[in-house]
Amino acid sequence: MSLNNVLAHIDADQDNALNRLMDLLRIESISTDPAYSDACDAAADWLVDDLKSIGFDASKRPTTGHPMVMAHGVGSGTHVMFYGHYDVQPVDPLDLWHTPPFEPQIIGTPNGKVIHGRGSSDDKGQLMTFVEACRAWKAVTGELPIKVSIFFEGEEESGSPSLVPYMKENADELRADVTLICDTGMARPDTPGIVTMLRGLVGEEITITGPSRDLHSGMYGGIAMNPIRVLNKALAALHDDNGRVTLDGFYDGVPELPEQVAAQWQSLDFKSDNFLGEVGLQNPAGEKGRSGLEQIWSRPTCDVNGIWGGYTGDGFKTVLPSKASAKISFRLVGQQDPQKIRDAFRAHMRAQLPADCDIAFSGHGLSGASSMEIDHPAFEKARVALTDEWQKEAAYVGCGGSIPIAGHFQKIVGTQSMLIGFGQDDDNIHSPNEKYDLQSFHKGVRSWARILAAL
Amino acid sequence: MSLNNVLAHIDADQDNALNRLMDLLRIESISTDPAYSDACDAAADWLVDDLKSIGFDASKRPTTGHPMVMAHGVGSGTHVMFYGHYDVQPVDPLDLWHTPPFEPQIIGTPNGKVIHGRGSSDDKGQLMTFVEACRAWKAVTGELPIKVSIFFEGEEESGSPSLVPYMKENADELRADVTLICDTGMARPDTPGIVTMLRGLVGEEITITGPSRDLHSGMYGGIAMNPIRVLNKALAALHDDNGRVTLDGFYDGVPELPEQVAAQWQSLDFKSDNFLGEVGLQNPAGEKGRSGLEQIWSRPTCDVNGIWGGYTGDGFKTVLPSKASAKISFRLVGQQDPQKIRDAFRAHMRAQLPADCDIAFSGHGLSGASSMEIDHPAFEKARVALTDEWQKEAAYVGCGGSIPIAGHFQKIVGTQSMLIGFGQDDDNIHSPNEKYDLQSFHKGVRSWARILAAL
Repeated sequence: MSLNNVLAHIDADQDNALNRLMDLLRIESISTDPAYSDACDAAADWLVDDLKSIGFDASKRPTTGHPMVMAHGVGSGTHVMFYGHYDVQPVDPLDLWHTPPFEPQIIGTPNGKVIHGRGSSDDKGQLMTFVEACRAWKAVTGELPIKVSIFFEGEEESGSPSLVPYMKENADELRADVTLICDTGMARPDTPGIVTMLRGLVGEEITITGPSRDLHSGMYGGIAMNPIRVLNKALAALHDDNGRVTLDGFYDGVPELPEQVAAQWQSLDFKSDNFLGEVGLQNPAGEKGRSGLEQIWSRPTCDVNGIWGGYTGDGFKTVLPSKASAKISFRLVGQQDPQKIRDAFRAHMRAQLPADCDIAFSGHGLSGASSMEIDHPAFEKARVALTDEWQKEAAYVGCGGSIPIAGHFQKIVGTQSMLIGFGQDDDNIHSPNEKYDLQSFHKGVRSWARILAAL
Repeated sequence: MSLNNVLAHIDADQDNALNRLMDLLRIESISTDPAYSDACDAAADWLVDDLKSIGFDASKRPTTGHPMVMAHGVGSGTHVMFYGHYDVQPVDPLDLWHTPPFEPQIIGTPNGKVIHGRGSSDDKGQLMTFVEACRAWKAVTGELPIKVSIFFEGEEESGSPSLVPYMKENADELRADVTLICDTGMARPDTPGIVTMLRGLVGEEITITGPSRDLHSGMYGGIAMNPIRVLNKALAALHDDNGRVTLDGFYDGVPELPEQVAAQWQSLDFKSDNFLGEVGLQNPAGEKGRSGLEQIWSRPTCDVNGIWGGYTGDGFKTVLPSKASAKISFRLVGQQDPQKIRDAFRAHMRAQLPADCDIAFSGHGLSGASSMEIDHPAFEKARVALTDEWQKEAAYVGCGGSIPIAGHFQKIVGTQSMLIGFGQDDDNIHSPNEKYDLQSFHKGVRSWARILAAL
């Protein structure tokens, strides 16, 4: 029984696997900030060297941004292409971190040990679960049980500017029987899932200009239009009192949940008040009449991710500012057209603008939602392997976040993706104090070892 | 003719007067920022020394904040108490200044020479017009024509926390026949005015807290309430479509303009489109059906002076933030009760708050509007003296800014204030590139010399 030997090896080698992950977590590969571009390069180099050490033909591929990493293993049978990303989110506000973000540590908590540090969950810890599974197979049997290729990108947290051109140019090399993606979470804390529905994303940054310079509100207050007032009014009008987004045609292409999926989600026993209670809230803020899982997985959203204008320092300054700005994002589902959503948003903002104000737009990310065709036999084999490892029936689920890569593999390469991840809702990804449960890491490695065997 | 000799001396001494003002402008007396408190003290010392040099019994009076300056001259007849403030506004954004804010310079412009630097107009340049007029009388005649006292404060730009306690404790010493205040502007660019209506101010800072920490909008977007959304909606609801403020009882105590004053204002030939055109706007943003002068002088307002929340750096971060904040101010007129306005604002914000969000308030300034009783004969004498100097009929006007000191003199000391100033609308007070016209300074000194003679 090779698989049992491989699982035993994974258990015995756990400390070494953790040390390798720690090395990768120490590299400050923040992709959105040009100051860290050498670190992004160093993370790619680290991965190339590590993959070579377990027999992959691995190389760094330059782009106009951060490099891709491509690797091919020797093997036969089913061919899988694994995707992950080695870049991480910015770390501000730094003063809220309990330990430095790039000095990873194992910390004991009431719920078990965790790996603490930026990227531990999103996505370095997750991608290393797959690499370690390959390493274990190689160590125990001298080979991989199937044909494995690997593709890592370094711009996932900064809008993936190089991804689509790269995938178009290298579609043949990226094609396999199925794509494996490890950048998602468990269906429930103790129940694994395969994500088959991913929300898309439209990001927009806007700046409204009113007066040509900052004014004194004593002298001009009343007569001069304040761009913050314009911005507040236009953004407030994006939601109605029922939590629905008001843009023209926003819900075009938003499907109702199939009855079968709705029933499966019902059985997951998701409690909105527990989910929200962990972050100090209690009432779902989305569309009235939609369940909590629908609100985070299968319904579209609009959020203001940042807003600024006027005097924001200590004390008080009665300025009537020249400019006010905001960053806004939309999460898309089903067949919503991202370009149409962007156009509708811009039309809404322009319609709200007084004649003597200006508005400037810049786009950040534009991707539709993805839905996988789960009739490929690999899906059911992987679901059974996950169920074996976690001893809970694995489910096909949705994901609120945007992982455009799955859609790109569908449209550009023509392959379906299985999104299998081991993150928890409280991993604080994109926040201070990101962590990854030690159990997620360890059982994640074991899960992939089983899936490789099953395929 | 002593007055003519005094005016001739002022003309001859202009360069020296400018050099003295430049010395005072170099002192970085930003009162709202504790880092500059030594500079505030130095500005007070400078004024005490200068007033002593022209025969005043001057001294610095400590407070729990920045010190007051009090000075009494020798003289008989009418007793005037002159008020000004030696503190200045912060200087950010520093990169918009053409020359450093605390390195004052004389700069030639198409409209004549100007004194460029923070405080040149608000209020160091203005207060020195009065000091120089006293100096000239003293130099030419050896004495002041009437009894003159002087009172400078150093916290006007930071809410004057020490002012009311100080005035209550020293009401007898502050009492004179009439108070003179030089912290306002010309009625029109070439027409002097005496301000008899001043708007009050209520300043509020708020922070709305939603989730207990910053969240990832992919994971929580839709179900978790975003405090920026709450803030936008609550602030947007402060104005209706006609530019009116919607707070309960906001217009209680707002008087209609007396016909006589309305007629006088009509004759000032104020053009909203010219006034707004100078700052890149064209349409009055205040209450529909009110003239431009009403909107800036006699109608109450609400402005958001600052707003911030979420990710505001370069690039894009799909954060769903824990907190969102804003600074809001109201300008009050007539008998509006500042405490009632504050209460109504806080009630409005609380009513807009979802059950699981919190809001914290902090107040910055709370003062009602002031209206002067102009039947004291000093008013008409001063108006004639101003008309003589500027060769344009001086007018009784309103002022959009909040100068609570006039109300304090009315209520605490029991004296009426004449607000006479020489600032121009384009002086950029509270903004980068503050300036004071050389003509404002020079004719300002001459104006006070005439007013001292007339009283």
